[in-house]
Amino acid sequence: MKNNSDLLEKLDEIAREVEPVIYEALSENASPEFQEVLLYPIETGGKRIRPAVVLLSCEAAGGVPEKALNAAAAIELVHNYTLIIDDIIDHGEIRRGRPTLWKKYGLTMALLAAVQYREVISELLLKSENSKRLLSIVDYYIMRLVEGERLDVLFEQFGREDEPYVVDHRRTNVSFEDYINMITRKTSSLYEASAMMGAVEAGAEERVIEAFREFGLNLGISFQIVDDLLDLFGSASETGKQIGKDIIEHKLGNMLILKGLERIYGDEKQFFLNVLRSKQISKEDLEKALEILLRTGVRENAIREAWLYAEKAKSSLSIIPDSKAKKTLLELADYVVYRNK
Amino acid sequence: MKNNSDLLEKLDEIAREVEPVIYEALSENASPEFQEVLLYPIETGGKRIRPAVVLLSCEAAGGVPEKALNAAAAIELVHNYTLIIDDIIDHGEIRRGRPTLWKKYGLTMALLAAVQYREVISELLLKSENSKRLLSIVDYYIMRLVEGERLDVLFEQFGREDEPYVVDHRRTNVSFEDYINMITRKTSSLYEASAMMGAVEAGAEERVIEAFREFGLNLGISFQIVDDLLDLFGSASETGKQIGKDIIEHKLGNMLILKGLERIYGDEKQFFLNVLRSKQISKEDLEKALEILLRTGVRENAIREAWLYAEKAKSSLSIIPDSKAKKTLLELADYVVYRNK
Repeated sequence: MKNNSDLLEKLDEIAREVEPVIYEALSENASPEFQEVLLYPIETGGKRIRPAVVLLSCEAAGGVPEKALNAAAAIELVHNYTLIIDDIIDHGEIRRGRPTLWKKYGLTMALLAAVQYREVISELLLKSENSKRLLSIVDYYIMRLVEGERLDVLFEQFGREDEPYVVDHRRTNVSFEDYINMITRKTSSLYEASAMMGAVEAGAEERVIEAFREFGLNLGISFQIVDDLLDLFGSASETGKQIGKDIIEHKLGNMLILKGLERIYGDEKQFFLNVLRSKQISKEDLEKALEILLRTGVRENAIREAWLYAEKAKSSLSIIPDSKAKKTLLELADYVVYRNK
Repeated sequence: MKNNSDLLEKLDEIAREVEPVIYEALSENASPEFQEVLLYPIETGGKRIRPAVVLLSCEAAGGVPEKALNAAAAIELVHNYTLIIDDIIDHGEIRRGRPTLWKKYGLTMALLAAVQYREVISELLLKSENSKRLLSIVDYYIMRLVEGERLDVLFEQFGREDEPYVVDHRRTNVSFEDYINMITRKTSSLYEASAMMGAVEAGAEERVIEAFREFGLNLGISFQIVDDLLDLFGSASETGKQIGKDIIEHKLGNMLILKGLERIYGDEKQFFLNVLRSKQISKEDLEKALEILLRTGVRENAIREAWLYAEKAKSSLSIIPDSKAKKTLLELADYVVYRNK
């Protein structure tokens, strides 16, 4: 892949613009004693891709990106809001190389912070001229995300014995279509919302907003497939996450696990299924499972699939006139495929 | 107290009007498999006092109550949203005589339902002509409620050893002023929001909206003091809750416990503090603690305090012209003090 230092610099620049808005919004409405908890998830950084999509979409749709700053801050908060809750649901203890919010401050504070985040999101969106439209976009996509998360959990092949609903509704058969449907909801939702909000803040017409939505949809699918890949074959030091977390968490809702299982047979398949359904997995078994997956070629398959969706994302913007911002969005689509974290 | 069968009939009538709106809003945006989870907290009933405050305030402020139906449904959903999260925070297993949502369906589904509730609330409020105002009221008061809940937890005298933040910030000295400040946030918030939203939907002027806010504020304080009383001296079969839950949960943020502790000395005080700080409390010790409290006279004290705030609530409405709806609101203020559940 070509050198992407320009893009990374642009992402950094955007992060520096959005961060003060996020900090102020979180601090403004909370007692000093609570601010420490609220700011923690933001301090740990993150790639800030979603706010970049908001600002770049606004500019590419002919708007002034400054007008979309509140929306950009809001979508980054939505992302962090869902991560706080995800980490509770998945019992995740490490995120971005640091303890997760519930692990650091306890469940009560993590839950109260999540509720507070959601209100700060509305406060930010209420400042916009287009607040009603922005609020309905955010509403709609958070509900889609909830459905995606619900499906992701139901696609798990073991665990949660203390959660009657999950045990009763667990899916043992998951098709590739089911998988795409799930990640569209779980992951594309916020990319769709980001791209649409940027276009809305630019005052774009509906067919332009729709083009940006499609861009976000496909970018999100590409993003999640690469996330699945990095979960299994990434570098822990780069991603800040534990390698093989999806196997440890019994997830069938990972493209490489799902497709890999279709390509192995006999003892190997049995071994892999056993690992996926084990309460505790040894380091050796995890490594053996990853090695089996690697041999099936799903890694290359996933890269190709991610690349196809990134290309789809790029062509969604064909009706948008060329500009520097549009060029950066196209580069972002490439970056999503070839990133290491 | 005078016969309140008229009031209870009116509350029932309002519940019957609001319920279909709640059911439709929850069902509309969720897959059938998830609807079961979402509807469960609503099926278990509840007093529906908050939506009644919305509709009656709208009417008393000169509006058409039908216009406030979505706001009434929304505030009942806010109430249930906070209960879902409260029950997780307090490890509460029984509510309204049935298992709590997390206990019934597991933590994951309870969290996803809570997130979904919050979006459905916005969807309902976005339907109003006054949506921006209603949404900022709801935002603001949910954030106040979060702060109240945070303080309530920090006023606990024991437990949550797995929650570092709580252990570090626990308050051992709580004044009556601190208590009122905490319950104003924890409980009055949604009453203030309810009364204001009703007035806003009536198109009332600011000083009228402010009068309704004050009504809600004082009604909420009265309501919480009586809740504290019922927690300790109510009837489990009527309240649907375990008696003495606040003692079991180590809460200093209960008016009767707080005031009672100021009135006992020596061995009795030590015994009471030990009970409040015990991991496990025997039935006998709980009964003895309640008996000590009863002898201090805090029960009568709490009733008087609740009555004073109810009177304050009523006089907040003095600038509002008399009407049937206003009369019902005044009756509601009395009911809040003299209710058994």
